[in-house]
Amino acid sequence: MTATGARRRGRPGYDVDSLLAVAVAVFNERGYDGTSMEDLSQRLGIAKSAIYHHVAGKEELLRLSLDRALDGLFGVADRVRATDAPAVDRLELLVRGSVEVLQRELPHVTLLLRVRGNTEVERAALERRRSFDRFVAGLVRQAERDGDISPALSPTVTAHLLFGLVNSLVEWYRPGSRTTGASLADAVAALAFDGLRARGEPPARR
Amino acid sequence: MTATGARRRGRPGYDVDSLLAVAVAVFNERGYDGTSMEDLSQRLGIAKSAIYHHVAGKEELLRLSLDRALDGLFGVADRVRATDAPAVDRLELLVRGSVEVLQRELPHVTLLLRVRGNTEVERAALERRRSFDRFVAGLVRQAERDGDISPALSPTVTAHLLFGLVNSLVEWYRPGSRTTGASLADAVAALAFDGLRARGEPPARR
Repeated sequence: MTATGARRRGRPGYDVDSLLAVAVAVFNERGYDGTSMEDLSQRLGIAKSAIYHHVAGKEELLRLSLDRALDGLFGVADRVRATDAPAVDRLELLVRGSVEVLQRELPHVTLLLRVRGNTEVERAALERRRSFDRFVAGLVRQAERDGDISPALSPTVTAHLLFGLVNSLVEWYRPGSRTTGASLADAVAALAFDGLRARGEPPARR
Repeated sequence: MTATGARRRGRPGYDVDSLLAVAVAVFNERGYDGTSMEDLSQRLGIAKSAIYHHVAGKEELLRLSLDRALDGLFGVADRVRATDAPAVDRLELLVRGSVEVLQRELPHVTLLLRVRGNTEVERAALERRRSFDRFVAGLVRQAERDGDISPALSPTVTAHLLFGLVNSLVEWYRPGSRTTGASLADAVAALAFDGLRARGEPPARR
């Protein structure tokens, strides 16, 4: 779709989408603070003026990228909010949906998770992340009240662990990684909600 | 202990331990590559020559830090290897012990998890990490063969998820963080091995 988008303009070069894809890769390699417009210009193989044709500067590229990640996550949260199911099931939907967003928007989610709040755009993204985290903690709290998850931990710690697990995927997941059968969303949900330890009948001896 | 160590030399200033603590904090803030001996000298408030009195340079500080993290993790692995228990229980011991190392050596483990392999010292650390990961995957494989954990996923993916969960603690755990009762090691083990979802009797209505 990126290549098609580039061609749609009827001339060689980039559109915002394909430009963003390259910029985010450079941000993830060098860090956003460590990337200059000159670096982007070199990697893209076009003049800085050609970049400014599409965006106001590197902070706009950062904003577009962080919004891709956050809009994906909030899209899942909105679907979950509209669901009429016990909180524990909504929490599982949220986890599964977040894994899918992470797979689909991997470079953007990776960048989001590295944001430290040095610019206005980053601080706005962190505020949206905190709002998402509060939504998660609220579902955990409700699921504990329902007696559907163990109340041994504070909802905040449980929420941290759950999304720590989800977010850790950016460290090793690469498109095409084999997960042997089950989807990655299934794998994460199975670990988080049912645990690794097999239950029930003792296994047949092999 | 750091302050005592510093006093033990009978003069104001640093010993290797207290110098390392400051250096690692700076590495974690600015990145190892982005930290110069000049930066360390300024933060420590001592001349570069005074740093060289203790260590050969910043790469030695990096090595000392990464070894603190890795020696801790391999200490746990050695204890687990010496344990005569089913693989699933050894895996749980390894997870619990790793959480404790992470809590005890938080800045060093944080640095370890950010290493990308730009120097000889970093490549050696990455090789030790890979060896640790193989040990984890081996335990998972054995536990699957024993029928004690679900074989739905490849052992490598399960190992990634399990230690992704453990390692994600560096993103939010701070000494003194409240986990309401259960230790952090209990919390991680409960999530990973038993899952969040309550089992057995339906909850009493409230």
